[in-house]
Amino acid sequence: MIEPEWIAADWGTTNLRVWAMRGAEVLDRRETDRGMGVLDREGFAPALAQATEGWGDATVIACGMVGARQGWIEAPYAPAPVAATPAMVRVPGHRVWIACGVSQADPADVMRGEETQIAGLLAARPDFDGVVCLPGTHTKWVRVSAGEICHFQTVMTGEIFALLSRQSVLRHSVGDPDDDAGFDAALSDALSQPHRAFGGLFRLRAESLLTDLAPGSAGARLSGALLGLELAAAKPYWLGQQVAIVGSSRLAALYARALRAQGVEVVEADAEAVTLAGLHALWKNTGGTS
Amino acid sequence: MIEPEWIAADWGTTNLRVWAMRGAEVLDRRETDRGMGVLDREGFAPALAQATEGWGDATVIACGMVGARQGWIEAPYAPAPVAATPAMVRVPGHRVWIACGVSQADPADVMRGEETQIAGLLAARPDFDGVVCLPGTHTKWVRVSAGEICHFQTVMTGEIFALLSRQSVLRHSVGDPDDDAGFDAALSDALSQPHRAFGGLFRLRAESLLTDLAPGSAGARLSGALLGLELAAAKPYWLGQQVAIVGSSRLAALYARALRAQGVEVVEADAEAVTLAGLHALWKNTGGTS
Repeated sequence: MIEPEWIAADWGTTNLRVWAMRGAEVLDRRETDRGMGVLDREGFAPALAQATEGWGDATVIACGMVGARQGWIEAPYAPAPVAATPAMVRVPGHRVWIACGVSQADPADVMRGEETQIAGLLAARPDFDGVVCLPGTHTKWVRVSAGEICHFQTVMTGEIFALLSRQSVLRHSVGDPDDDAGFDAALSDALSQPHRAFGGLFRLRAESLLTDLAPGSAGARLSGALLGLELAAAKPYWLGQQVAIVGSSRLAALYARALRAQGVEVVEADAEAVTLAGLHALWKNTGGTS
Repeated sequence: MIEPEWIAADWGTTNLRVWAMRGAEVLDRRETDRGMGVLDREGFAPALAQATEGWGDATVIACGMVGARQGWIEAPYAPAPVAATPAMVRVPGHRVWIACGVSQADPADVMRGEETQIAGLLAARPDFDGVVCLPGTHTKWVRVSAGEICHFQTVMTGEIFALLSRQSVLRHSVGDPDDDAGFDAALSDALSQPHRAFGGLFRLRAESLLTDLAPGSAGARLSGALLGLELAAAKPYWLGQQVAIVGSSRLAALYARALRAQGVEVVEADAEAVTLAGLHALWKNTGGTS
């Protein structure tokens, strides 16, 4: 029997991850596929009860799409620039708090979940002044200064890579990336000539038809081309800045490799660690004491 | 009972379209969903027999993916530069001829079907010197001079638009395009700053969340942004050239609008007419007399 002081929850579109916590210490962790996307409004309470069974009735601090309009309750966006420790809303009738997302008016943009990771990053490094890059299906580039989220940009590179590599005509040619030199060259080409990278995507299919291009090489070149397009778009964020990359995945390593090749000073932060640090900071704001 | 002199067939991945022909005159036409993609090698002969039932045993001239490696028989690519009237291969045991596609070594590229449409365009205008643009799922830009396909480029814009508008997170925000001013502005922005267009795609989602952006406007802006990216990539093809656009769809009209806005001299050719003209030219090469 575990008796956590509080429970941390990262509740996204496809997964619900929960941690039994004592202060900043993890006692236990679980992951389920009860993401926001498969739940109707009445489904959230039972999904959480099931995921945290045996953990008592400790306060739950949650972040992510659980707070979207289609989520449990809407945790409204706070407009940037905004303090990097998010506001929260409480779910009526439950000991559950949900972190508010952050919005930006112009250019229009939104985040949910990343604001909590940024709060966690700043908990360890309160004086951080630079850019936070959070790679994922929709990668976020976030300018952080003086403890605030100043402005940010979302780029859909991860989702576009998944669609092209699994559902477009390129699926016949593209495999798991395994060609670092091909990745680097495609990235460099796309960064300097983004329009040519966009226009050159079909070439991967044609080369595999005409020259038996290896799938791993085609995958690396597709990945490099799309990431190069993204870096060209996000250049105002990373150029001349210190960049903290939040992630523990192979994807985060690709971003680090790409940015270092451009001479950018990069630090890497573990995604789970900053998520928990951010939720811990929020828990303390509810009156938690550790 | 129709007794065609010959039968024209446009046999792509998803459809088989056949025409009963007397010389260049269409006696009848039919369309089925027996495309190459749903047929195994033994399925082609019955599919054709069924589609042309009652038309006798006239010679069939076919173009498109029916000649791919996964098709009825492989009609090998002819390497560009090449005469714009394609070579053909005969299906053993059948009165069926299939047009060969065209390949390009560097940058690697391939076409199947478009070479026949270009032959049809040149049948009416043998002195055409310029660029042929064939909009579609995979749009082709083809430099034609002195009766030859000189070089060409395939851009995946149509497929990327379909994936983003139907399967990505943008599907919640994007509807059928119905905002000409939004299309024009997005196209112009993407043409001048292609990397920003790529990085700005998520903005359509965010604007619909924050400002109730109309789906038709989001669709128009997505379409304009992607076409602007394509025009940036294909600029060496259209800049300062006469461009013949082959198509009868709304898509072809968008390309014409976009190119004319850049001061390009555009002529439009009906897709079915040039396909039939190209197949007619091929039929005459087999000994047809009309």
